[in-house]
Amino acid sequence: MLNTKIRLRQILTIAILLISCNSFAQTSEREAYSGKAPKYIFYFIGDGMGLSQSNAAEAYLGALEDSNGIKKLQLSTLPNQGFYTTYALNRFITGSAAAGTALATGHKTTVNTISMDAERLIPFKTIAEMAKDKGYKVGIVSSVSIDHATPATFYAHQPTRNMYYNISLDLSKSGFNYFAGGGFKHPEGDGTTEEKNSLSNFGMGATADIEELEPNSMRVAESRGYTFVNTIQDFKKLKKGDDKIIAIAPKLAAGSSLPYSIDQENESDISLADFTEKGIKLLDNSKGFFMMVEGGKIDWASHANDAATVIKEVLQFDKAVTKAIEFYNKHPKETLILVCGDHETGGLALGFAGSHYNSSFSLLQYQNTSYEAFSNKIALYKKEHADNYSIADGLEIVKENFGLGDASKGLELTPFENQQLKDAFVKSMTYVDTMTKNDQFYLLYGSYDPFTVTACHILSHKAGIGWTSYSHTATPIPIRSIGVGSKLFTGFFDNTDIPKNLMKLIETK
Amino acid sequence: MLNTKIRLRQILTIAILLISCNSFAQTSEREAYSGKAPKYIFYFIGDGMGLSQSNAAEAYLGALEDSNGIKKLQLSTLPNQGFYTTYALNRFITGSAAAGTALATGHKTTVNTISMDAERLIPFKTIAEMAKDKGYKVGIVSSVSIDHATPATFYAHQPTRNMYYNISLDLSKSGFNYFAGGGFKHPEGDGTTEEKNSLSNFGMGATADIEELEPNSMRVAESRGYTFVNTIQDFKKLKKGDDKIIAIAPKLAAGSSLPYSIDQENESDISLADFTEKGIKLLDNSKGFFMMVEGGKIDWASHANDAATVIKEVLQFDKAVTKAIEFYNKHPKETLILVCGDHETGGLALGFAGSHYNSSFSLLQYQNTSYEAFSNKIALYKKEHADNYSIADGLEIVKENFGLGDASKGLELTPFENQQLKDAFVKSMTYVDTMTKNDQFYLLYGSYDPFTVTACHILSHKAGIGWTSYSHTATPIPIRSIGVGSKLFTGFFDNTDIPKNLMKLIETK
Repeated sequence: MLNTKIRLRQILTIAILLISCNSFAQTSEREAYSGKAPKYIFYFIGDGMGLSQSNAAEAYLGALEDSNGIKKLQLSTLPNQGFYTTYALNRFITGSAAAGTALATGHKTTVNTISMDAERLIPFKTIAEMAKDKGYKVGIVSSVSIDHATPATFYAHQPTRNMYYNISLDLSKSGFNYFAGGGFKHPEGDGTTEEKNSLSNFGMGATADIEELEPNSMRVAESRGYTFVNTIQDFKKLKKGDDKIIAIAPKLAAGSSLPYSIDQENESDISLADFTEKGIKLLDNSKGFFMMVEGGKIDWASHANDAATVIKEVLQFDKAVTKAIEFYNKHPKETLILVCGDHETGGLALGFAGSHYNSSFSLLQYQNTSYEAFSNKIALYKKEHADNYSIADGLEIVKENFGLGDASKGLELTPFENQQLKDAFVKSMTYVDTMTKNDQFYLLYGSYDPFTVTACHILSHKAGIGWTSYSHTATPIPIRSIGVGSKLFTGFFDNTDIPKNLMKLIETK
Repeated sequence: MLNTKIRLRQILTIAILLISCNSFAQTSEREAYSGKAPKYIFYFIGDGMGLSQSNAAEAYLGALEDSNGIKKLQLSTLPNQGFYTTYALNRFITGSAAAGTALATGHKTTVNTISMDAERLIPFKTIAEMAKDKGYKVGIVSSVSIDHATPATFYAHQPTRNMYYNISLDLSKSGFNYFAGGGFKHPEGDGTTEEKNSLSNFGMGATADIEELEPNSMRVAESRGYTFVNTIQDFKKLKKGDDKIIAIAPKLAAGSSLPYSIDQENESDISLADFTEKGIKLLDNSKGFFMMVEGGKIDWASHANDAATVIKEVLQFDKAVTKAIEFYNKHPKETLILVCGDHETGGLALGFAGSHYNSSFSLLQYQNTSYEAFSNKIALYKKEHADNYSIADGLEIVKENFGLGDASKGLELTPFENQQLKDAFVKSMTYVDTMTKNDQFYLLYGSYDPFTVTACHILSHKAGIGWTSYSHTATPIPIRSIGVGSKLFTGFFDNTDIPKNLMKLIETK
């Protein structure tokens, strides 16, 4: 029975690979690239990072220096700029899986699909897999769980992004050299039939046995030669040449992700920039490397319309980009850096009706906690004060964490804002799920804790930032680049053109 | 007395010009341009056109063709892309005068100032004036009044944008070859002391006499050799070589502007594209030309959060750009086309909380009137039904003009939307100025007719478009370019860098 199953898998593998190769035929028809291949490729993806997210961070830095202008991020200093559309095959506003698939494989697909076609039958070969075939060492780095949609699209092929267990099995199957970021979300699976029947679990050859015998995907990874590193001490010890490393942040926040930058309590946490720097050290070799680095929580904070947290995630992402720029400066003739995003989230605009033509970005410095940590505080308060909550307590908590109501910080509340906070606090204390079905309730609070999102909105508005959505938007995304072949990434194009151009580049190797 | 005044003016002129020259010294320190000067320069400015405005038009065109993607505008086909910041000297969110001054002169200034320094003492020389000095013929075209802030910054030097009379005197003083668009807003002045004491009216030499004797700036223009053309017949007769023409659209809408594209009743109106095409014909000569073309009402419609009208203005602007591209195709080695914007307006995003991840841009086709024309209808209804208005009438009018409530068009109203419209209609019928002082009222309606802006909002939201403001925003703006020297306009820079680079280009002539 087992043998029949394995044989069936092998036949399917061959069939799938044949179709997959065919679907790549069009690549070779594209205009050839006449230059040489970059030896070192950095592919930075800010999840949810549109032009507004990065510019809000620049306006914030400018405001802290009392400038009316901006202070440029390092990523904005890259000389080549382009834009691209992001739509999915079945929706104008994309999702991270379809957007990641486009950025990883050059193919449009349906939302939630991980590097497979719309029918979820054909796996699309990824640029990271092609890089590996060409002899590059490959690293995949993220500030969210390493099996999350965006990083997954570079090494996994699964019908849906929610199949975290299968995705984590694909991770170790990839043979890539370095993974770093958050942990595995469901190393033992969540027991869904969907997972067990995963297409990609079929047909990937001899290694299937290990998967059958060992239900924990972390143990599967170890049996495939990977080493997990999840203490600061062990992480620091990692040295050039160490291979097949899965480095996981020692302190994980919700969703097995790195803690928000704004919530970081001490300097000893491992940051996205640390993971990037270490990646450079481990991957550097005579045949070069390809490293994808995702800033994953810009998106999450944008969903929650939390401007201060977004900005601090962007600044953290920019520190990771800075590591690549430092490397570029040592190897300018061999390096390519791309910095892009998968889509915009939240409809962030640097202007709000209520603040008219005014901006006060420096006010955002008084927020000292992410929407997530703040929501937890409110949930705890609710638990402890279910029957005796007090609006005065709510206003005190929001003053401590957002500065709202503190006149000494320039954050006095208008009567309207005061009322908004009070209403939201009562909603938080009396919240039941069905409330979000009310249109007006959803517009005000989305599916977030009402008090938290209202605090985020009021501080955003006082700073001069507006939001239109709790979801993604379809506004085109900028790509910034420097180095070998970077001229290919200028103009106005589609997200699928980015890996197609990367393929043209590495084909010359 | 008159002689003393004229002498004082002459002394001031010399002083001002000396300071002005000095303030340009920095230009020569910039990296030199080694190529040749473009013979033909097109400088397109979409007022209020950010990346979202042009992309909304592209999403709309795509949706009309049942695509999940976009259909590119002609302006998006230009190969070089860059972004730039737009902040004014004294405000992060700029205004059209300061933004126009930056784009016209390469200098930051304060909001409302027309091509003068922040103290409003020193006139900044404009790229159009420099082009004239270099022997180019010069044209200034706009879809709004030709003395409006953006076009004015290319030929006028005035302490404030509201000094329309003085600006229109500066227009004919410029000696430029072709003006086209809307009319003069205050050819006889509005009698303010401010106007009469205008700084720029000082010191511009001998022509001051004409201004003293003739209070109508149109007559002043004629005495300076200009011919006004304001019928379709006369416009059609204009031929190559005709010089010093001021062509004004025969049918003017509010603010002496061209009617909104969505309100155009017949094809015989002169469009922005017609004015551009005619400009090419009149200006073409062996020494080349410089033509600035502004799409001025993208901004106005964005202020009102009227998505359908914005999109149709963008499409009209794109038709004007197409005329330049056709010309470029005949003279690719001598032409430069720049397409940019002065700032974004409205915080338009291609995603709205209430529509989640969905978009239905094709619904915008059912709006058949601009917010402006609709407001006029509501004002008329109010006048005629002051004491006996009916909400049913309001819902009927909005169905006729926006399609809202028409299930056959996919525009059935939710109970929440229905209530929003009813509330707004009552507000429109009972409106008094003080209402806008209420924060919540302002957030809902700005300073627009409540029923009109609510209809615009609901249709935007159903289409999947969100807005954050009734004012401008500070999000960086894209610049698209093609042709001689266009490589200078890639990367991420500041709005002042655009004319500085243009100056580098024409300095080589």
